[in-house]
Amino acid sequence: MQEFDTILRNACVNGSYTCDIGIKNQLISAMGLGLVATEDTEIIDCEGAVVTPGGVDGHVHLAQDRSPRARAAGYVSADTIETGTRSAVAGGTTTVLLFAEQAKGQSLKEQVANYHFLAQEQGSYADYGFHAIITDPTEEVLENELPTLARDGGIMSMKLFLTYKHMRISDKQFLQALKKARELEMVALVHAENGDLVDFFTEQLEEMGLTNPMYKAIAHPPEAEAEAVNRAVTFSSIMDTPMLIVHVSVEEPMRVIQRAQSLLKPVFAETCPQYLLLGKKRLEEEHFCGAKYICSPPLRSDPKEIESIWRGIVNGTFTIFSSDHCPYRFNDAQGKQLGFSRGCDGKPKGVFTKIPNGLPGVETRVPLLFSEGVLKRRCIDVKRFVELTSENPAKLYGLYPKKGAIQIGSDADLVVWHPQDSFTPRKLNHDRDLHDGCDYTPYEGIEFLNWPRMTLLRGEIMFREGKIVGENGYGQFIRRKPCSLPFQRRMGKQWDVLQAAL
Amino acid sequence: MQEFDTILRNACVNGSYTCDIGIKNQLISAMGLGLVATEDTEIIDCEGAVVTPGGVDGHVHLAQDRSPRARAAGYVSADTIETGTRSAVAGGTTTVLLFAEQAKGQSLKEQVANYHFLAQEQGSYADYGFHAIITDPTEEVLENELPTLARDGGIMSMKLFLTYKHMRISDKQFLQALKKARELEMVALVHAENGDLVDFFTEQLEEMGLTNPMYKAIAHPPEAEAEAVNRAVTFSSIMDTPMLIVHVSVEEPMRVIQRAQSLLKPVFAETCPQYLLLGKKRLEEEHFCGAKYICSPPLRSDPKEIESIWRGIVNGTFTIFSSDHCPYRFNDAQGKQLGFSRGCDGKPKGVFTKIPNGLPGVETRVPLLFSEGVLKRRCIDVKRFVELTSENPAKLYGLYPKKGAIQIGSDADLVVWHPQDSFTPRKLNHDRDLHDGCDYTPYEGIEFLNWPRMTLLRGEIMFREGKIVGENGYGQFIRRKPCSLPFQRRMGKQWDVLQAAL
Amino acid sequence: MQEFDTILRNACVNGSYTCDIGIKNQLISAMGLGLVATEDTEIIDCEGAVVTPGGVDGHVHLAQDRSPRARAAGYVSADTIETGTRSAVAGGTTTVLLFAEQAKGQSLKEQVANYHFLAQEQGSYADYGFHAIITDPTEEVLENELPTLARDGGIMSMKLFLTYKHMRISDKQFLQALKKARELEMVALVHAENGDLVDFFTEQLEEMGLTNPMYKAIAHPPEAEAEAVNRAVTFSSIMDTPMLIVHVSVEEPMRVIQRAQSLLKPVFAETCPQYLLLGKKRLEEEHFCGAKYICSPPLRSDPKEIESIWRGIVNGTFTIFSSDHCPYRFNDAQGKQLGFSRGCDGKPKGVFTKIPNGLPGVETRVPLLFSEGVLKRRCIDVKRFVELTSENPAKLYGLYPKKGAIQIGSDADLVVWHPQDSFTPRKLNHDRDLHDGCDYTPYEGIEFLNWPRMTLLRGEIMFREGKIVGENGYGQFIRRKPCSLPFQRRMGKQWDVLQAAL
Amino acid sequence: MQEFDTILRNACVNGSYTCDIGIKNQLISAMGLGLVATEDTEIIDCEGAVVTPGGVDGHVHLAQDRSPRARAAGYVSADTIETGTRSAVAGGTTTVLLFAEQAKGQSLKEQVANYHFLAQEQGSYADYGFHAIITDPTEEVLENELPTLARDGGIMSMKLFLTYKHMRISDKQFLQALKKARELEMVALVHAENGDLVDFFTEQLEEMGLTNPMYKAIAHPPEAEAEAVNRAVTFSSIMDTPMLIVHVSVEEPMRVIQRAQSLLKPVFAETCPQYLLLGKKRLEEEHFCGAKYICSPPLRSDPKEIESIWRGIVNGTFTIFSSDHCPYRFNDAQGKQLGFSRGCDGKPKGVFTKIPNGLPGVETRVPLLFSEGVLKRRCIDVKRFVELTSENPAKLYGLYPKKGAIQIGSDADLVVWHPQDSFTPRKLNHDRDLHDGCDYTPYEGIEFLNWPRMTLLRGEIMFREGKIVGENGYGQFIRRKPCSLPFQRRMGKQWDVLQAAL
Repeated sequence: MQEFDTILRNACVNGSYTCDIGIKNQLISAMGLGLVATEDTEIIDCEGAVVTPGGVDGHVHLAQDRSPRARAAGYVSADTIETGTRSAVAGGTTTVLLFAEQAKGQSLKEQVANYHFLAQEQGSYADYGFHAIITDPTEEVLENELPTLARDGGIMSMKLFLTYKHMRISDKQFLQALKKARELEMVALVHAENGDLVDFFTEQLEEMGLTNPMYKAIAHPPEAEAEAVNRAVTFSSIMDTPMLIVHVSVEEPMRVIQRAQSLLKPVFAETCPQYLLLGKKRLEEEHFCGAKYICSPPLRSDPKEIESIWRGIVNGTFTIFSSDHCPYRFNDAQGKQLGFSRGCDGKPKGVFTKIPNGLPGVETRVPLLFSEGVLKRRCIDVKRFVELTSENPAKLYGLYPKKGAIQIGSDADLVVWHPQDSFTPRKLNHDRDLHDGCDYTPYEGIEFLNWPRMTLLRGEIMFREGKIVGENGYGQFIRRKPCSLPFQRRMGKQWDVLQAAL
Repeated sequence: MQEFDTILRNACVNGSYTCDIGIKNQLISAMGLGLVATEDTEIIDCEGAVVTPGGVDGHVHLAQDRSPRARAAGYVSADTIETGTRSAVAGGTTTVLLFAEQAKGQSLKEQVANYHFLAQEQGSYADYGFHAIITDPTEEVLENELPTLARDGGIMSMKLFLTYKHMRISDKQFLQALKKARELEMVALVHAENGDLVDFFTEQLEEMGLTNPMYKAIAHPPEAEAEAVNRAVTFSSIMDTPMLIVHVSVEEPMRVIQRAQSLLKPVFAETCPQYLLLGKKRLEEEHFCGAKYICSPPLRSDPKEIESIWRGIVNGTFTIFSSDHCPYRFNDAQGKQLGFSRGCDGKPKGVFTKIPNGLPGVETRVPLLFSEGVLKRRCIDVKRFVELTSENPAKLYGLYPKKGAIQIGSDADLVVWHPQDSFTPRKLNHDRDLHDGCDYTPYEGIEFLNWPRMTLLRGEIMFREGKIVGENGYGQFIRRKPCSLPFQRRMGKQWDVLQAAL
Repeated sequence: MQEFDTILRNACVNGSYTCDIGIKNQLISAMGLGLVATEDTEIIDCEGAVVTPGGVDGHVHLAQDRSPRARAAGYVSADTIETGTRSAVAGGTTTVLLFAEQAKGQSLKEQVANYHFLAQEQGSYADYGFHAIITDPTEEVLENELPTLARDGGIMSMKLFLTYKHMRISDKQFLQALKKARELEMVALVHAENGDLVDFFTEQLEEMGLTNPMYKAIAHPPEAEAEAVNRAVTFSSIMDTPMLIVHVSVEEPMRVIQRAQSLLKPVFAETCPQYLLLGKKRLEEEHFCGAKYICSPPLRSDPKEIESIWRGIVNGTFTIFSSDHCPYRFNDAQGKQLGFSRGCDGKPKGVFTKIPNGLPGVETRVPLLFSEGVLKRRCIDVKRFVELTSENPAKLYGLYPKKGAIQIGSDADLVVWHPQDSFTPRKLNHDRDLHDGCDYTPYEGIEFLNWPRMTLLRGEIMFREGKIVGENGYGQFIRRKPCSLPFQRRMGKQWDVLQAAL
Repeated sequence: MQEFDTILRNACVNGSYTCDIGIKNQLISAMGLGLVATEDTEIIDCEGAVVTPGGVDGHVHLAQDRSPRARAAGYVSADTIETGTRSAVAGGTTTVLLFAEQAKGQSLKEQVANYHFLAQEQGSYADYGFHAIITDPTEEVLENELPTLARDGGIMSMKLFLTYKHMRISDKQFLQALKKARELEMVALVHAENGDLVDFFTEQLEEMGLTNPMYKAIAHPPEAEAEAVNRAVTFSSIMDTPMLIVHVSVEEPMRVIQRAQSLLKPVFAETCPQYLLLGKKRLEEEHFCGAKYICSPPLRSDPKEIESIWRGIVNGTFTIFSSDHCPYRFNDAQGKQLGFSRGCDGKPKGVFTKIPNGLPGVETRVPLLFSEGVLKRRCIDVKRFVELTSENPAKLYGLYPKKGAIQIGSDADLVVWHPQDSFTPRKLNHDRDLHDGCDYTPYEGIEFLNWPRMTLLRGEIMFREGKIVGENGYGQFIRRKPCSLPFQRRMGKQWDVLQAAL
C-alpha cells in the first residue's frame, strides 16, 4: 500500500478539480479521492481551496553587490540570498533563478563559484539556480568555461545586455555567444534597450539639468526598447537559438515579438509586476519618493501601455511573469552619504542616474497576479496563471517536470491558497506583511484578494499563515536541463551559416 | 482503502510523466505510483506508453440525410450513428458532437427530438451531443425553442451558415441569432464562405462547361472564405459572443482570426486533417477519383497553404482540430443513377456541384495528428496535441472537465498508445484498418507511426488492438454547459447596443 | 504669333513656380514668362498668388429628389443643379459629378435621360457628368442599357450600395455589376456599410426609445463600415476591377484599403470634409441642431478618428477628396409637417431615422482643404492638395487631362487664390458667404485663411471677388473616358474566372 | 515678344500632353502651342515623342579612390568625374550627386575641397553636387565643419554607414550626427546593413572556405539589412530628422519603411536597377563572372524579392530610383596582381571579400526604368517614372524646381525620347552603346524598347543620337537647399529631447 508523509486533503488543483494530494519522499506520489493516511502521515486540510504548484521566479537579483564595480560604488543589495529566498517562499515562490555576473576581465567560472559559495554561506529557503551573465565573451569563456558550466554545472542559461556601459556587449559578441548557446542548448536572456540611445538621451537631459527621477522615463524611451528587441529577435531568428526578452514594458516591442512568435521563431517574452500595475506618474511622487520606482526599462504610460501589457498576459505574447526583484533600501545611511541612495533628498546629488536601478518584488509577484489577474480583472484563469508564474519558467529553464507542475513524480512544491470565501481582502503593508530585507514595497496599500496560506517546498512547509516555519538552508541548488518549451528548429542541431542564410 | 475497477499501470500521462491511473465507477479516481489493486481490479499494463484523454471530435456529421432536401436528392450518408461512433472509438475518439439540422420552415426542437430518437434507435459507441443547425431563425425558434434546448436540453452550441442556398441566413438573422446565443451562453459555429461569391463563380464555370472535380477548388476561392471569416469575426466582436470559425483552410482568414484573438475578441478557430495533409492536386486524380476529395472549403495549394495551416496548429491560431467527418460512398449505386455519386464516371452527370460534399475522417483524425504532428514533424508536443484534439473542444463545448482531461474526477475516457519503440509503422488501408461505413479513405497509403492500442470510454474498453470490443449503445447523450475556454467579455452579461458601439 | 483671349499674369502655378498663363478658345494655350497680349486680350493680374486647376468634385447630389421614393416621402433637395453648381464655382469647383439614381424596377437609361433633361432645364454653372446609381441590375440594365450609356453616353462610372433598403444590392448582383464594369472599363463607386448591421442596431435603438440624432453615430458603428469595405475590396480584387470606396470615415477600413493598395489591388478611396473637421459631439448640439450633422457614415470620434483621416490625406491612402454634397434645409416647412425635417423639434417625430441624410459642402470643400491642410496644419503641399481635389478625381473619372491640370491643351479651368499676405482671415457665415440653396453650413464660424478670388471655367470668369459673374447654362455635360489612374490589371482584358482564382 | 534660343516642337511632356517648349538663357521660358521662333532660334523637332526632365541620379560614386585606404589597397575607380558624367548624359541623366568621403581622422572640409578641386581638374558633363560621407563625427566636424559646408557650401546631405569597418559609426555617433543634420536641415542617407552580422557571417564562411562570389549573398543576409533599417528608421523617427535609406534590396525592410511612412515618419527609400532586374543566380556565373555582380547589399532571390521591389516602385514605398554607380573594371591588370580584381580567376586570391564592391549603372538607370517599367511591365506611368528618376531626387536633395521638372523657370534639362513607333528595340552591348570607363555592364544583352534620343543640360545638347556632342566642363557644381519633399515635423524646429520622448 502507498504510504504518505503528508496528505493535502480537498485540494482544488489549479482551480480545476478537487482531490487529495499524497506526498512521499519530497515528491507528489499520488492524487486521488480519499487517499489513505497512516499514523505518521501529516494531514493538511485545504478546505477546497485552490492549490497551485510552487512559483518559479526566473528573474531574481540577490546579493548582487559582489562585482568590483558595485563594491567600488558602494551599492548594497537590500537582500542576501537568505532574506531574498525567505521573502520568496512567503509569497508562494519555491524556486528562484539568481544571477552570477561576470565583470569585464573576470573569469565567469570563478564568479559562478563565488555565488555557489555565497549560497552555501548565506543559506537559502528556496531551491535555486544561476543564470550566467556574460559581459566579456572571450574565447576562454565561450570555448572552455561555458561548456563546463552547462554540461557539468547544469547552468543552462546566459544573460546578455544591450545596454549599461559596464555590461553591454557588441552585436558581434552577441552573435558569438548565441552560436555557443545554440551548441550547448542554453537559453539566452536579453536585456534589450539600445544603450547608445539611452546614453545619448541621458546626456542631453543632464546638459539641460533635467535629472529628477521622472526624467528616467524620458531617458529610456520606448523606442530604445523596441529597437533593441527587434535586433535581438533578428539575431535569435537568424541564429535559430531560443531567446527570452526580459522585462518587456511597452506595446511596440510586443508587436515585434508577437510577429516572430507567429512565424514560429524561438522567441519568448517576460514581463514583470511593475509594468502591469505601476504607471510613470509614480516617478513624480513627492519627497523624492519617485526614487522608489527607478528601474530599467522605466515605468510607462498608464493606462495605455498598462492595458497593452495586460493584453500580452492574456493573449499569450508573454511566456513568463517574473519579479525582476532587485532591491535597494530607500533609507540607506551609507548610500545617502555617497549620493546614490534612493532616499537622499536629491539636492544636489539625487540625480536619477545615481539611483540604484531596480524594484523589490519576489514576495508579491505570485499573489499580485493571482489577485489582480485571476480575481479582480478575471482576464485569466488559474491555468494561465500557473503557466505564467510556474509551469512556463520551469520549462524554459529546464526545471520541468521536477518543478512547475502538480503531477505524480514532481517535487511537492505547492502553494495552498485561502478558500476564497474565507479570505478578508487586505491592503499590503510592507513592514507588517513582507519578509524581505528592503524597507519599502512599490505595491504598498494595494488590496489583495487572496494570499498564499501555506507554501511547501519538496514536502516541507516553509511558510504557514503569515509565518516562516521552514529552515534556512533547506533550499538546494538545481542542475538544469535544456529548455522544454516547444519551439521549432529550422536548422539541424549543428548550426550552419549556409542554412541560416538560405 | 481506495478500490479500483481498473488500473492502468505505467501510463505516460500526456507524454509528460509516468504513473498508474485508477478507475472507479467510470471515473478517474486516483493517479499515483504503485496503486494497489484488489482481486476484482482489471489491470492494463501500458508499458510506459503515452496515454491521452479520449478524443473529443467537435464536428461530425452522422446520419445527416434526414432533411427533406437530402431525402429528395437521394443523398445517403455513409455512416449511421452506430457505424460512425464505432469508427470514432477505433480512432481514439470517445465523444462526438453531431448535428441536428433544421430545414427551412421546420421546427428546430422537433428536429432535435428526431435526432435523439435516431441515436436511441441506432445506438452509439461514443458519448455524444448535438449542435443545433439553425437555417430558419424565426421568432419562435429564437425565443421559445432555443432557450428550452439550451437550458433544459443542454444543447449549448448553434451552427450558422453563410453559404449553401438552403442553409444560409442573412446577416441580420446572423446578428439576431448571435444576440440570442449571447443571452443563452451558447457558442456559435460558423461555416464562413461567401455564398454569393461561390454561386457566382460556380455559374461562371458551369457556363464555360468547366465542371470536373478540380473546378471545385476554383468555385470556392480563398477570398470567399477570407471575406466571410472577416464578416463573422466582425459580428462576433460587435456582439461580444464567442464564435468558432469551422474548417479554416487557408492563410488569409487565419490572419483575420489571429488579429482578433490578439485583440482579445472571443473568436476561436478550427481546422481539419484534410487541410493539413491534402493539396488540391488530389482533385485531379484519374478515373473521377478527384471526387473523393470534394469538400467545402475545398483543398488548397500544397505546400504554401498547407504550411500556413501547420503554422496555425503550432502558434495557437487554431483552438481545436476536428474531423468534419461527412462520409459518402464513392461507389454508390443509387447515387450513380441520380448522377451525384462520387463514383459515377462523370459523363455527363459527374459535375462537381452534384457530388456530395464532405470527407470521412472521424477515425483517422487523432492518429493523424499524433503521427504527423508529434512524431514526424515534431512541431507540437503531446500537450498541444491533447489541447487540439480533446481538451479545447471539451472546454469550448462545455464538456470539461468531465471530458478532455486526465485528472481526478474526470470520466475515464482514455487512449492508450503503443509504446513507440514497439510499433511498426504501417500504411493505412481502408478496408483492413477502418471501421466506418464508407468505402474509401482520403488518407489511403499514408504511413502511421502509431495508432491507439486501446480506447476506454468511462472505464470500459471499447477498442483494443485493432478490434471493437465495446458494446453499441454504451455511448450516452451529454447535456453540456457553457464554454469554459477563457475569453473576455467587454460588455456586461446583458448585451447592450449602446455599449457595443462605444 | 500666339494670340490670347486672356492672360493670367504672375500666376504661381500649383504653388511651385510663377509665370503667365495664356488662354485661347477656352484652353490653356501657353505658359511662359512675359506672354504678349494683343489689344483684345483680357489681362488678369494674379499678383503672384497661387493658381490651381479648377476643382473636380466627384461626389455631388443635386436635385436628387426625383425618385418615386423621395417624392413619396416628400424629401426636397435644397439644391437644384443651378443653385448647386453656382455654389460649386463660388468655391473653386468647376466640374461636378452628379448622380442619376435608378429606382428599383425603373429603367436606368430612362433615369439618365431624365437627369439630362433636368440639367438642360435648370442650367448649370459648372461642367458636369453623371454617375449611374444601379439599384436593380437586371439583365436588361447590365447587358443593354449600361453598354449604351458607357460607350455612347460617356457615363463611365457606376455607384453601388451595400446599405439602405431601397438601394442595396446583393453580393451576387454586386459581382455581376463589377463583371460588367470591368468589361466596359467603368469605375465602381461603393457606399460600403453593412446594411443589415445598421438595420439591426437601428431597430435595437428604436426598441429602447433611443432616437435622438446622437444615436445615429451608434446605429452606424465603425464595424459596419469596416466590414463592408473589406467585402467590397475583396470583390474588387477578385474581379480585378477598379473601385472607389466613397466617404471613408474611420481608421479600420483605411487599414483594409491601405493593405490592398500596397498589394497593388485596384482600390481607391475617398474621404470628405466632414470626417476631417467634425466630430460626433456635434450630434448632441442643442435645439435639435444635432440634426444638421446627420450623414452616413456618421461623424466619428474626435480627435482619434479625425487624426486618422488626416493621416490618410497625407500618406496617400485617400485618392480623392469630395464633398458628398447632399443638402437639406434645416428649417423646412413641409418637412416639419411630415416629421423628417432636420429642424423639427424632435418630439415625437424627430427621430434620427427620419432626418434626411447628408450635409451641404460643395462650396466649402476646396477652400477648407486649402486653409486647414495646406495653411494651418501644413501637412500637405499644394501639389498634394491639387491631386486630392482636382487631378486625381479627373483621372479617376476619365476627365484628365481635359480637367485636373494646368498644362497646355487643358481646359482653362482655374482657381486664382488671394495673395496670402493680403488675405484677411475670416470666419465663415452661411448667409453672407455661401451661394447654395441650403439654410446652414456645418462649417459655420470656421476661420478661413484663404478663399478663391476668382474661378474660371474654360476661360470664362464664373466667380470673382465674392460674386457670381458667370452665366447659368455655360456649364456643359462631359462625355468621359476610362479611368487613367495607374493600376495593374492581373488578368487580361477579358475577365476570366479561372485566372481570377489561380 | 518672347525670344528663344531653342524651341522643342511637338514634345509630349511627361507623356501627358503635347506642346512646344521654349528655352532662353538655359531656362525653360515658355510652353505653348506654336511658339514663335526667331532667326537665331534652334529648332528641335521631337516628333510627338515623350520628353522628360533630365534625370537626377542621387547616388553616384565617381573617382572615389582618393581615400588613403583605397590608395593603399590599390582600388581604382573605373570612372573619373569626366567619364562618369559623360556616361550619365548619354543615359539621360543631367545631374549627379557624388560623394566626398571623410577618412577616419581626416578633415571632412578638406576632403570636400579635394573633390571640388578634382571636379575642376577632370571636368564634368553633368551638373553635380556632393554628399558628405561622415565616418568620424568629431566635435570639430559636427560643430564647425558641417555648418560651414551646409550654410556656405550648399552641401545639404550627409551619408552614414552602419557597416564596413573603416566607415561605420556607432549608434551614438549616428544620433549625434542626426541631431546636427536636423539643426542644419540636412538629409541623412544611410547605408543600412548590420556590420557586425555581416562580419560574423563572413568570418564563418571564410572559416569554412566558402569564398566564391556566390557566398557574398549569404554573407549579407536580408536580416542584416532589415535589422539596420529598423534601427535607422527608429533613429530618424525619434530624432525627427528626414532620412533616406539607400539601396533597399529586399522585402522585409520595405515593410519597416512602409509602416513608418504610413505613420508619417520622415523616412524615404531608394532602390537601384540591380535589385529590380538581377537575381543572385548571377553570382554563380562561370569564369568568375559572378564577380561582375558583387555589390552591397547583394543581389537577392529572383523572382520573389524582385517582385517585391517592383511592388515598392509602384506602390510608392520607394521615393527615388538611383544607380549606385560604383564601377570597377573586370579586367584590371593591377587588381589582378593584388588579388582583388573582379577579373582574376579566383585561385587562391579571388575571394568575395577582396572583390571591389559595386556595379556600374549611371548610364542605364533611366532607360532601364523607362523600358522595363513603363513599356514592358506597364506597371508605372511616365509621371511616376519622372518622380522616381528626377522629380523626387531633385526635391529630396534641395534641387527642385531648378532641377526635376519641366516647368517655366526650371533649368532646361530635358530628355527627348524616340517616338515609340520608330524605335527598333535593341539589345544592350557595352562596348558599342555605353560611354563609361568600365569594361562591362551587368545589363549586357537586355533589350531596350527606347533610349534617350537627345539629352539637354541647361539648354545645351549634350548627347544626340548616340553621340556625345556637349563639352566636358559645361557641368556645374550646384549649391543645394533643404529637402522640399513633404514631411511632417512632430517637434518644433529646435529639437528637444523632452518632446521627443513624450
